[in-house]
Amino acid sequence: MPTSTIERSETAVEIIRNRRSVRSFVPHFTIPHEELKEILELATQAPSSSNLQHWRFLVIDSPELKEKLLPIANNQQQVAQASAVIAILGDKEGYRNAETIYSSAARAGYMPEDTAKLFISRTVSNYSALPPEKAREVAVVDASLAAMQLMLAARAKGYDTVPMGGYDSSKFMEAFGIPDRYVPVMLLPIGKAAKPGHPTVRLPLDEVTFWNRIS
Amino acid sequence: MPTSTIERSETAVEIIRNRRSVRSFVPHFTIPHEELKEILELATQAPSSSNLQHWRFLVIDSPELKEKLLPIANNQQQVAQASAVIAILGDKEGYRNAETIYSSAARAGYMPEDTAKLFISRTVSNYSALPPEKAREVAVVDASLAAMQLMLAARAKGYDTVPMGGYDSSKFMEAFGIPDRYVPVMLLPIGKAAKPGHPTVRLPLDEVTFWNRIS
Repeated sequence: MPTSTIERSETAVEIIRNRRSVRSFVPHFTIPHEELKEILELATQAPSSSNLQHWRFLVIDSPELKEKLLPIANNQQQVAQASAVIAILGDKEGYRNAETIYSSAARAGYMPEDTAKLFISRTVSNYSALPPEKAREVAVVDASLAAMQLMLAARAKGYDTVPMGGYDSSKFMEAFGIPDRYVPVMLLPIGKAAKPGHPTVRLPLDEVTFWNRIS
Repeated sequence: MPTSTIERSETAVEIIRNRRSVRSFVPHFTIPHEELKEILELATQAPSSSNLQHWRFLVIDSPELKEKLLPIANNQQQVAQASAVIAILGDKEGYRNAETIYSSAARAGYMPEDTAKLFISRTVSNYSALPPEKAREVAVVDASLAAMQLMLAARAKGYDTVPMGGYDSSKFMEAFGIPDRYVPVMLLPIGKAAKPGHPTVRLPLDEVTFWNRIS
């Protein structure tokens, strides 16, 4: 089974420019778990709301489960061909980790113990009181930030990805037993590209940017 | 006024690892518009739902408007100190650009004319029929992907950023005349770091990752 441990020799700007959605992967190609973990760990370096890290990753790399996912994802073959499909989930109850996170920040010497205690109580009381749609949106934003970073980290490590919104999220939740605490944000097949992704166009910058006033 | 045109000599992986939220910027430091545009243009290379690019950027760099924003953002000084504050907006009606986007893809030779026509009619009919909360979520995801890429592109170009969710989004919409079509996703001050960002902790990878089944 071929594997790759080579970082692409592209600069960060080149990685951003050259990343494309790849829909054709080398079948049966295995990404070593250590590499996949490194890519995921890089994804978790993304910033998040109050550092609560409202992202979770369900890595689907068993052939049976990829087959199970296939019809839920409109039979798009990249789901079966990719080395793994990473389901990016948002965590609507990230405040439950506030104590773990801030205590460990205090232990690391990144904040005084008292500040950590204050942060814990403030964070738990604020976030647990959010209206459900706001808690969901916070989770979706954080998970999306991690997803983008994951795609770039994958490319830096010699792999490619394709973010997919076209799947039945209710069926996915049910088939994979995803607790209601998590919001499915996207499916992200990752693997060794068999064919490069298609180039795509972008709107001219001045059509998406306003300077100081919305015109 | 000092300026920087140097790309940081970090690899992509180092940029991901070394990016921190910076809250102290060199006051009165101007990022040349050409550089800011390059960073924004790199952000727009992010992938998006059906390539509809549901992101918009409101670049606030006039001193008066930064002062106006300050109380709306809980008087966090980075808003006034940063060279610019980029408000990241999601576009809930991105399908209105389907014709422009797919026609230009056809003109570029990226898809046959007939495919473009089919994509346009399918995209407009699907996306214009989305329930409002789903249209909002699509916009929030795409805008967040662009935001993450913007933060990394900024760092690659020698600048730093801090994503901010702590502001009054209703007051912001009103004070800056943001049409209801757009969702404010975050404020992103960008500038030349005066002090490095604080290190922060991350949950261990195995607490945020599931392998094949949610346990």
